[in-house]
Amino acid sequence: MEIQVGIIGFGVVGRGVIALLQEYGNLLKKRIDVGIKIKTIADLNIKDNRGLDLTNIKLTTDYKEIINDDEIKIVVELVGGTTIAYNIIKEALEAKKNVVTANKALIYEKGEELFKLARDNKSEIRFEASVAGGIPIMKTITESLSGDVITEICAILNGTTNFILTKMEDENCSFDEALKEAQSLGFAEADPTLDITGGDAAHKIKVLSSIAFNTNIDKEKVYRKGIDKIQIEDISYAKDLGYTLKLLAIAKKHDDKKSVEAHVYPTLIPSKSSIASVKNEYNVVMLNSSYLGISHYVGKGAGERPTATAIVSDIVDISLAISDKREYPCHRYSSFNDYKTMDISEITSCFYIRLTTVEHVGILANITTILASHDISISQIMQKQSTDNNTVPVIIITHKASEKSMIDAIDEMQKLEYVQERPSLLHLENI
Amino acid sequence: MEIQVGIIGFGVVGRGVIALLQEYGNLLKKRIDVGIKIKTIADLNIKDNRGLDLTNIKLTTDYKEIINDDEIKIVVELVGGTTIAYNIIKEALEAKKNVVTANKALIYEKGEELFKLARDNKSEIRFEASVAGGIPIMKTITESLSGDVITEICAILNGTTNFILTKMEDENCSFDEALKEAQSLGFAEADPTLDITGGDAAHKIKVLSSIAFNTNIDKEKVYRKGIDKIQIEDISYAKDLGYTLKLLAIAKKHDDKKSVEAHVYPTLIPSKSSIASVKNEYNVVMLNSSYLGISHYVGKGAGERPTATAIVSDIVDISLAISDKREYPCHRYSSFNDYKTMDISEITSCFYIRLTTVEHVGILANITTILASHDISISQIMQKQSTDNNTVPVIIITHKASEKSMIDAIDEMQKLEYVQERPSLLHLENI
Repeated sequence: MEIQVGIIGFGVVGRGVIALLQEYGNLLKKRIDVGIKIKTIADLNIKDNRGLDLTNIKLTTDYKEIINDDEIKIVVELVGGTTIAYNIIKEALEAKKNVVTANKALIYEKGEELFKLARDNKSEIRFEASVAGGIPIMKTITESLSGDVITEICAILNGTTNFILTKMEDENCSFDEALKEAQSLGFAEADPTLDITGGDAAHKIKVLSSIAFNTNIDKEKVYRKGIDKIQIEDISYAKDLGYTLKLLAIAKKHDDKKSVEAHVYPTLIPSKSSIASVKNEYNVVMLNSSYLGISHYVGKGAGERPTATAIVSDIVDISLAISDKREYPCHRYSSFNDYKTMDISEITSCFYIRLTTVEHVGILANITTILASHDISISQIMQKQSTDNNTVPVIIITHKASEKSMIDAIDEMQKLEYVQERPSLLHLENI
Repeated sequence: MEIQVGIIGFGVVGRGVIALLQEYGNLLKKRIDVGIKIKTIADLNIKDNRGLDLTNIKLTTDYKEIINDDEIKIVVELVGGTTIAYNIIKEALEAKKNVVTANKALIYEKGEELFKLARDNKSEIRFEASVAGGIPIMKTITESLSGDVITEICAILNGTTNFILTKMEDENCSFDEALKEAQSLGFAEADPTLDITGGDAAHKIKVLSSIAFNTNIDKEKVYRKGIDKIQIEDISYAKDLGYTLKLLAIAKKHDDKKSVEAHVYPTLIPSKSSIASVKNEYNVVMLNSSYLGISHYVGKGAGERPTATAIVSDIVDISLAISDKREYPCHRYSSFNDYKTMDISEITSCFYIRLTTVEHVGILANITTILASHDISISQIMQKQSTDNNTVPVIIITHKASEKSMIDAIDEMQKLEYVQERPSLLHLENI
């Protein structure tokens, strides 16, 4: 048996998928006893063969040729974005075709609608590649942990920012220098805004947590803070204290409150933790679940070849289902929990604070009084020796406090006459 | 729809599976839209309910009641061992039932035969729990990487020995002391032989590598060396050099030679590597594959609850297949590569050597001459200060050398009059 596939969007990832299927197609057939044939590729700019032999593949600039082709059972959407891609997937599902996509932005925006559309049409939509690229995290959550209850996700979901933070820590360089290196090596795009502001990771943690917790997540409430304002001083001081800075995407389920939290911000974690050892462009997803306990999964989160493995694994699963005339169940993505998404102001964590002060009697007394008045207790405090320009850095690590009381405390500290600038504030998790 | 399941063997893991299905059965039904019902439990000693409510479950001492029950579609074998368990699985498959097992010893001994039997009977056999407990590694290899080619596996597959080695390194204690602590905490059995000699990990790497490389592995050639002879001195010296000792299970595919290597031995790895950060009873599997690159997966390798998640995920996959009237494919375990299993003497790695010598002129000249005569080149060499009893430890780290030439060189060194005892020899991998 041979399953016909249409690919819409012939960019870097499309090239990877076709290269993989050409290189290992025969091997794959031996493994699964079903052939997978790329029948048609659609792209507005289809002239370039991108170094591949496309002899037996139909090329077109009109994606509807794929949607309208009765022989094609699987449509792979690799156009990206949320406009044309949305139309493509909608039309494909309505034509009772199965869909594989790497489009995290679209699943973030329209996931629930598309899952329902797939269910209504007895089609399948798969998107393993959309979150953490090559890490098989959707399959792990929906299949391997199908009988377990995940309560927490803690992840590095953006390779660009992990690369930048690794450089800053290892080479003691500024954000701007590290970004430039990331761009020159191809780990950051020319316009890196979506990555460095935490937007990309926020999209991904919303998708992951809604699937893991079986609930819709209010995307407006997925708080995100990026790394573009991170100062190298804070990375250095934290390193001395045994902490490493990572852009963590965290989601937690609170069954008692029927609510979930999901957010992305730069977070200090113990340098000895497994997550801290995940460097450069690698991603990691750590899960805490009731029966399995802590488990974590590490791999490349992007790139032509890692992403291709995820897309091909989705194509294979659907192909096997088709070859068995199976009505593939979409139930694995159902949102039967109707949980509220918590506002960032309600969320608690530990914090790292760095104040730049001028030497003055009673600094520490003043600062600790402010923290106490907001019910924030201190875990560690250090007053460093005064620097060249007579400023004195004071570093405080707190116990758990709410985001709101912490911001209020920082506002008050900033008003003290001998505090020179807005204090640095970072989240801290003892994972 | 409801799928009826029979469980044979009501020990720790059986208890975990039943507890999980009782606790999360309703949730699972919401997720997959198929009910899973435990109809019968068989165990020779069935009197104890193990703290569970077994009211609606039939209890029997005769496993054939499960095999002969037409309503039961899935048989979960949790008896262990390779005799009765073999009969149970054979009879179940011949009765066209699907089988889920956690029995690594049996899959190690009879895997190929049972896979064929399943295929011939259009039944399924699943064994996610047999290797690395809660880590979904079988699914990752056979499904997520179905289109990719795995070339190397490097893993910690035995939690008992990882716990012991972690204790020895962190608390600077002897093997015997660490073993006693592992036993008192339930991380080692009363008779820990199979674990500490590397036998358990050898079983698992044989199963993993035969599936990952699509070839049979000659189990007689899976070399294993345990940790029971490890001296704390070597762990300490290695730590000073930036290395950590782990009992690594390694398998590599050599397409050029149409051969594979698979072996288990204590191995020094850089302390900064991700694998070194996997401590205590945790397992890890690192894969190197052509498209995805390096990825790794960490979780608990044993225990009632982690193992239960793996078994339930297998039950769920089969239940969904049955509910779709699907003939579930076994092709994912086919051994179409006919590769030779390499003998340990052919395998190369780097080595750590520690010699205990009495002070003597020309020691280093003698030793380095011996190594050179066996074509072994040196990466690092250190002569430590003489200890209380006038012995001088000499530590050498070599570049890659064959096992055979290394053993020959050690034999020669031992004959030198000022070498006091058999030199310590450990493998070393720069992962």
